[in-house]
Amino acid sequence: MKSDFDCVIVGAGIAGMTAAIYLKRSNVNVLILDNDAPGGLLNKISVIENYPGFTSISGPDLAYKIYEQVTNLGVEIRYGKVIDIKDYQVITDLETINTKKVILAIGRKARKLENTNNLKNVSYCALCDANLYKNKTVAIVGYSNSALEEALYLSNICQKVIIIARGSGLNGENVTIEKIKNKENIEIQLDCVIKTLNSNDNILYKIITNKGEFTVDGMFVSIGYEPNTEFLKNINKDNGYIIVNDKMQTNVDYIYACGDIIKKDIYQLTTAVSEATVAAINVKKTLY
Amino acid sequence: MKSDFDCVIVGAGIAGMTAAIYLKRSNVNVLILDNDAPGGLLNKISVIENYPGFTSISGPDLAYKIYEQVTNLGVEIRYGKVIDIKDYQVITDLETINTKKVILAIGRKARKLENTNNLKNVSYCALCDANLYKNKTVAIVGYSNSALEEALYLSNICQKVIIIARGSGLNGENVTIEKIKNKENIEIQLDCVIKTLNSNDNILYKIITNKGEFTVDGMFVSIGYEPNTEFLKNINKDNGYIIVNDKMQTNVDYIYACGDIIKKDIYQLTTAVSEATVAAINVKKTLY
Repeated sequence: MKSDFDCVIVGAGIAGMTAAIYLKRSNVNVLILDNDAPGGLLNKISVIENYPGFTSISGPDLAYKIYEQVTNLGVEIRYGKVIDIKDYQVITDLETINTKKVILAIGRKARKLENTNNLKNVSYCALCDANLYKNKTVAIVGYSNSALEEALYLSNICQKVIIIARGSGLNGENVTIEKIKNKENIEIQLDCVIKTLNSNDNILYKIITNKGEFTVDGMFVSIGYEPNTEFLKNINKDNGYIIVNDKMQTNVDYIYACGDIIKKDIYQLTTAVSEATVAAINVKKTLY
Repeated sequence: MKSDFDCVIVGAGIAGMTAAIYLKRSNVNVLILDNDAPGGLLNKISVIENYPGFTSISGPDLAYKIYEQVTNLGVEIRYGKVIDIKDYQVITDLETINTKKVILAIGRKARKLENTNNLKNVSYCALCDANLYKNKTVAIVGYSNSALEEALYLSNICQKVIIIARGSGLNGENVTIEKIKNKENIEIQLDCVIKTLNSNDNILYKIITNKGEFTVDGMFVSIGYEPNTEFLKNINKDNGYIIVNDKMQTNVDYIYACGDIIKKDIYQLTTAVSEATVAAINVKKTLY
């Protein structure tokens, strides 16, 4: 069967777009598929200060710069939600694409907090929704570096930000923790466990914890990420994360993976661009 | 003995500076040492088009952006040529520094072409020296992607550029090769081996090869890189490249390494920033 593409990259985040840059520059006929805007998780990050080359940049700005780089090279990006990958075919909700190689770069999604599905004023993206809570009081659930960055972002827009941390300390970079401590409108609640969420007409108005009750206008959640790889039935995984070798190849020899979706120790932009480079160069090597 | 620093990073290229960003943001007391301007090999690259975030940027411009990022964080950078590292001491030509950890990020140097040591018009850096050959004829020895990028850069400044390639084809990315072929003032000599370099008062004027004689005003050399790690006597190496584990740790447990100086498959900016991140995070983990 004739292939439509040499390589289909699933996911237009920083990993997928980096792989596309390397492949297209090597004359590989490449397609990027995504069912969302290019940028992936970058589009939900308010500020990035540890990606070399940018002292400080917003996630969407960095996403757009890389998107421009990709489109300048003439890489095709198509909309599509991938349902299955089998027999050198990528099957989306819209079409079936024949390809020689696949690179999975589908990243991760925010982990959901229990019992919040119906609540209208619960958000998983400060950058997206902070403006709805201008001069209001919000809680942020979580205490990782990402959660703290979100708290800082919210503190510049909201009147008050309450950090609800299950842990006994904040778990971020010192530079971030220092900034948090210097903010007068951020309240930190450590060892704080949510007992009940009180709502009215699906609007959360009170968070009841072991440390007291907090009346809020909205709640942000930043309690980590989880992979969404259930649709990949024949790929070896560990807790949902795809297992790759040092060439970024999965157990299915024409399928590679890179970025936040793979099983690894460190999930950073810098590590994602590296894995994407390795995947692309190894795909290129095996193509002709 | 009291340590002067938690971590000394040797080398202020993209790898060393990235490690410094991660460490400093985690409140690690870090020093960068180099005996040259910040940027390392970046300072010799005319154009970079495969580093995610920049459609096209010169090496020195990218180096300066990362340097700004590092200095904004308050990282100290000192001048010094490292002579030896032993017993938690980094010994330079100027001082002895006590440290808990070391990250080696000393990169590579351009490989020298034989019998060119005394020749005044032979250069290893098109970006540095192209202007000396404005409207003149130059040769470039090499046929890797780096050599081809240099040839393109030269072709915009010099009247004529002759690529002297030992191989039977150009060994670069297709996008680069296409650009080369579209340049009327670039002549490509394949399977071309240098026999003699004719000079007068240490000025090269003729390159004699198996494919003919070429009269030139200057010659550029881009035949790869080699590590310069002889001074590191107790570190395990392979052909001069430092052997690290997946935490970027060498056989000496307080010494880590990252970037072009390590033994690996792919030498790219993207891979260097990843290794630097991994080294920094693992150094941080073992510090306290």
